[in-house]
Order: sequence, then structure tokens, then C-alpha cells
Amino acid sequence: MSQTASAGPSPVVSADLHLEVRYFYVRQMRLLDEGHSEEFAETFSDDGVFHHTSATGAPPRGRAEIAAAAKAALGLRPGLVPRHWFDMMLVEPRADGSLYVTYQAVVSRTDATGAVDFEPTVFVEDELVREDGRLLNRSRTIHRDDLRLSGGR
Amino acid sequence: MSQTASAGPSPVVSADLHLEVRYFYVRQMRLLDEGHSEEFAETFSDDGVFHHTSATGAPPRGRAEIAAAAKAALGLRPGLVPRHWFDMMLVEPRADGSLYVTYQAVVSRTDATGAVDFEPTVFVEDELVREDGRLLNRSRTIHRDDLRLSGGR
Amino acid sequence: MSQTASAGPSPVVSADLHLEVRYFYVRQMRLLDEGHSEEFAETFSDDGVFHHTSATGAPPRGRAEIAAAAKAALGLRPGLVPRHWFDMMLVEPRADGSLYVTYQAVVSRTDATGAVDFEPTVFVEDELVREDGRLLNRSRTIHRDDLRLSGGR
Repeated sequence: MSQTASAGPSPVVSADLHLEVRYFYVRQMRLLDEGHSEEFAETFSDDGVFHHTSATGAPPRGRAEIAAAAKAALGLRPGLVPRHWFDMMLVEPRADGSLYVTYQAVVSRTDATGAVDFEPTVFVEDELVREDGRLLNRSRTIHRDDLRLSGGR
Repeated sequence: MSQTASAGPSPVVSADLHLEVRYFYVRQMRLLDEGHSEEFAETFSDDGVFHHTSATGAPPRGRAEIAAAAKAALGLRPGLVPRHWFDMMLVEPRADGSLYVTYQAVVSRTDATGAVDFEPTVFVEDELVREDGRLLNRSRTIHRDDLRLSGGR
Repeated sequence: MSQTASAGPSPVVSADLHLEVRYFYVRQMRLLDEGHSEEFAETFSDDGVFHHTSATGAPPRGRAEIAAAAKAALGLRPGLVPRHWFDMMLVEPRADGSLYVTYQAVVSRTDATGAVDFEPTVFVEDELVREDGRLLNRSRTIHRDDLRLSGGR
């Protein structure tokens, strides 16, 4: 993980491309937060892979495994409405035509009494590819901030 | 409410239009958070209507009623500085020229000791129209996430 | 501070310029949150000045003083991963070619157990200038919301 590698001056993508990426994430996160695990997994490419620094074992690879992992993660929030919040996003085109996208994220959880709390903040690295004109996630790597402190990555 | 209706591929508005909408909200929310209820109400059209899933009775309709409702809501936060936070916004043009805008929101409240807490997260559906070149809210519908859990909408 | 001065209709900057400003902040805030105080200070102009309503004495002026102040501020968060969250940003060009940028911000802090809390929300006024094609901060003024309530600014 290098959050600061692009700290110097660098080309900025067009606002239209940046917005297309943002809308991709809006739709993807609504699917996840609404509990549509299969449709969430369809926003990944066939060979998509989902790394999470809190996970042990092989990362979910392919839509079926990603859907199962998303479903399992949702099961950890019974009686809560989750909302993903993203900020500080950079979209950087790669020479192979893919997009390297980095951002920070946090999940809020609202319960039936109206109380709100937050899961640990994370830093995310995504690789997006375009297939048939549509953006798809080829990889996602989530770095939990609490694990950085406790010695993990 | 359908948060996922537009999950499939769909045209993206131009980044310039999206930004105009964003700036509309920045100004509208600063007015609200600063307690300028009348000026906040002026960001609605003459026939604007404000639905809130937590409210009973007829929704405020027209600027006078919306100003009164905004003033009453502000009175519920004595000794607190509120800040609205928006994310995951989609702007979708309608055939009639209006804009259907959806997003999630949360209100932070900072007190005089520096402590911060959050009101329940919400999902918002807005209809924006353009009058004399200026964007105005023709309707707003706020869905509180805690009420979804407790059986409301 | 006038958060609502620009509440009326006003020209909107291009989405490309707005995005350039956003990316400037993404890089600047990653440097700060990762603890790179010197590189953070390099995002200010030679004569940059950093006002903070919670500070007493003369504000840090110039990169060396700003780096020292940033380093001291980071020392106040031992064992915590800070993340800056920005929203409600307006970019307004000035007649002299500088940019007047205003936004709200909050800092989340995640500890090694995964617990998250937030520092008091703030309203920020920045002046950005362009040198050799690159944006730099000529001034930053941070208004803490809790100090507004307790009588400060």
C-alpha cells in the first residue's frame, strides 16, 4: 500500500471519467448496503478478486465466491442498516487501460432506536476494467486502519 | 423507494451538471445548518413539498410551511452545531426536464465540549426543477433508516 | 466567516477545475494523515499561513512553521489512525486569479481495537494559488464548531 506515492503533481483524469467511476461505486455500494449480494458480485469481473486484510485464507475469487463473502459479511450486521461512506478518491489510469482507484471508506450502522456507530475506517485500492463499455472491478484490496495499528496490514 | 432501480448501466449526466447540482446542495445545506430557515425554504419551488418518514400529518407544502418546519427542526438541536454530510449521489434526468436526485445523508452534531454524535442515517429522493435558470427543489422525501427497521418507511 | 454569502445564484466553476482542487486536497490530506509533516507543508506557498481558531499566539507562517505545527498536531493522536473527511465544498475564483475554497471537515480516529470517534466538526476557508502550474495553499483558516458555541470563533 502506498497512499502517498502520487503526492506529487500528476495528471488529473477528466471530470467526466471521474464521475463515471463515482456513479459505478454509488450503484455498487447501494447493492451491497441493500443486501443484494449476487448483484453486488456482478460488478466484479469474471476473474475478480477481493482481498481484505482482516481475512485469513485465500481471498474470494470470481463472482460466486465474492457473492458468498458479501452475504456472510452482511450477516454480521443483524438489525442494522449499513451505509458506506467514501472520500478522498483518486482515479489514476494505467498504461494497460485499467483504472487504479484509491479511497478511504467507513461504514455507518444505524439501529432501530436511531443510534449510529461506525466500523473501523479503511483504505481501499481497486483495479477497474472496462468490458463491453461497462466498468467492472477486477480487484479490491481493503486495508483496515485498526489492523495497521495492531501489526497487521 | 427504490435505491437499486438504477443499478444497471445507465447514462451518466455530465460532470458539469452534476457539479451544479452539488453546489445547489452545498448552498442549501449551509443555509439550513446556519439556521436560515426562510432562505432555506426559498430553495424550494412555490409548490415544493417536503416528505419525511418520521412525520405525521400532511407534509409541509410551499415555502412558508417548509420554512416553519425547518425552524421547528432546528429547535430540536439546542446547543449543537449541525452539519449535513451527503454521499452516494446519483443525478438522473427525467423526460420532463426535471432531475431525480438520490443520496444518503447523515447529520453530525458538535456540542460546546467538542463531543460529536450523529442522527440516524437517511436515504433521500429529491426532484429538482429549473426556473429562470436556477435549480429549485420541487419535492424532497427523506427515508430514515431506523424507521425502516422498526417497520416504518 | 461567511458561510452563506454565496447562497444566491453564482457562477459555478468547471467540473474539471473543481476536480483538480479535490485531487489537490486528497493528496494533501493523505500526506497529513500518514504523518508526512514536511511534505504536507510543501503544499503551502512560501508565504502560506495557517490560522486555527483553537490556537493562541501567532499563526504558523511559511513551510517550516507549518510543518512543525502539523507534526505537533499529529502527536496529539498517539495510537490512532486519523482520516480527514470533507464535504460541502465550494470553489470560487477570485479576481486576482486565486481560488477561495470553503468546506466542512471532520477527523475520524480509529484505534487498535477498531473503535472510531470523531474530533469536533470544523468549517474551513482556504485560499489557493497556482505557481508553476501547481496549486498551493496560500492560507487556511479553520473554524472549530465547538468554539463557536463556547464564544470563540
